[in-house]
Amino acid sequence: MPSRPVSDRWRIRPRTTVDLAAIDPGTKAGAPGDKLATKDASAVLRARLAELQARLYAEGSRSLLVVLQAMDAGGKDGTVRAVFEGVNPQGVRVASFKAPTAQELAHDFLWRIHAQAPGDGEIAVFNRSHYEDVLVVRVHGLVGEDVVRARFRRIRAFEELLVGEGTTVVKIMLHISPEEQRTRLQERVDDPAKRWKFNAADLAEREHWDAYQRAFEDAIAATTTRDAPWYVVPGDRNWYRNWAVLNILVDTLERLDPQYPPAPAGVEGTVVE
Amino acid sequence: MPSRPVSDRWRIRPRTTVDLAAIDPGTKAGAPGDKLATKDASAVLRARLAELQARLYAEGSRSLLVVLQAMDAGGKDGTVRAVFEGVNPQGVRVASFKAPTAQELAHDFLWRIHAQAPGDGEIAVFNRSHYEDVLVVRVHGLVGEDVVRARFRRIRAFEELLVGEGTTVVKIMLHISPEEQRTRLQERVDDPAKRWKFNAADLAEREHWDAYQRAFEDAIAATTTRDAPWYVVPGDRNWYRNWAVLNILVDTLERLDPQYPPAPAGVEGTVVE
Repeated sequence: MPSRPVSDRWRIRPRTTVDLAAIDPGTKAGAPGDKLATKDASAVLRARLAELQARLYAEGSRSLLVVLQAMDAGGKDGTVRAVFEGVNPQGVRVASFKAPTAQELAHDFLWRIHAQAPGDGEIAVFNRSHYEDVLVVRVHGLVGEDVVRARFRRIRAFEELLVGEGTTVVKIMLHISPEEQRTRLQERVDDPAKRWKFNAADLAEREHWDAYQRAFEDAIAATTTRDAPWYVVPGDRNWYRNWAVLNILVDTLERLDPQYPPAPAGVEGTVVE
Repeated sequence: MPSRPVSDRWRIRPRTTVDLAAIDPGTKAGAPGDKLATKDASAVLRARLAELQARLYAEGSRSLLVVLQAMDAGGKDGTVRAVFEGVNPQGVRVASFKAPTAQELAHDFLWRIHAQAPGDGEIAVFNRSHYEDVLVVRVHGLVGEDVVRARFRRIRAFEELLVGEGTTVVKIMLHISPEEQRTRLQERVDDPAKRWKFNAADLAEREHWDAYQRAFEDAIAATTTRDAPWYVVPGDRNWYRNWAVLNILVDTLERLDPQYPPAPAGVEGTVVE
């Protein structure tokens, strides 16, 4: 029997309730050592991820969708950079979903999402996603609870479609504490190189912290499935978060076990003149 | 007066004829030293590129389009990997243009290209491009010379549009020798990890080597402009090629000199509660 993958620690099993308050955002649990040792482990995982991505791309018949969600300043951008730098950018596409445009609003909430789904051989990383449509709109009361429940169903059906047609789906919530968010937002005020990311609206959103946490718990519980699981990754320490996300992606791709395709008939022994 | 940028060595000036046979694909001219020293120099350039990309992305008002063209096995994929690994994938998008689909063929040749143009703050890398429509179709006689001339005009007008609206355009031909192509195609036959890239059609294309070189010369001469210049980069040695392309991109972005935007009014001194 294969040993339990490292990433199982953060996986949310189907048919469980989610209690974010019970998950310490600052934990180092399971890390291979201190910050330095963990960064070394991450470098090894990053090389492994690059190799698995190269195989997935060469294989050209399956794909991977990575959904990243978090509170503001939760570390989505930093995770994308830390995890995917070093992976061939030609098979990785990052889609950032901002406030929807007029044209996007004129369609169902999954329309713009579907358009960004990964093609054969690709990895697509969603920085925010369709989950915004059961988080921010819910916290602000823009849709009723009946619509939220219906959207959970539609999300499950949409993700089942992707999975059934060859896309592996992993969804990751970067879980930070309100204190860590405060520190990071303050950095955006104080550091000229980070100030462009500061958005006064984030301060207003911060007031709704508890409502967001409840909305995350509901959304994760309603949509974590065997084939499209959610992972909740403690995110107060960047080095732990990066190591955890790398483990999730490497474990996922190792299960897929992509292969360089066999030579087409007649290629073997060809001499190029 | 500022010193001449390193990348000027490979730039094709407007209103010149292009003689590819006069450019040695195996040259090391201008390299900072041997292979090892040049790789060290490339590492420094790569860090500089990452910093410039971060600023371009933060600035969020201009963009960069990098067009890569080459003969088959000319090193486009390897260049993308070597040059852009280490750059934040969230601001870099690679678009690979393959044989057009039925829907794409039902539109003008720039339709699918325009759709992939970089947005504000983005770098888009085109692995093949609209130039295929004045190269492969010309070599195979699928369009007449009058259409080719008209397309040169339309390409110039299209690129002028992009440049005028805020996109910096650089076009790079990776220039290899027929002997190097032979070696690389043979590797694709012999190496199981490369065999998926082998395409028997490449052997047939190889027969048209000289016609392709002439088509490249014409296309480059007709479309290299002050604001959307072509560069011809000697490509037989990967380490020289990577160093050259890094220089081109760093020089280009340094001229742009993107800046972290100033703090919006009222942000300075904000205390996050």
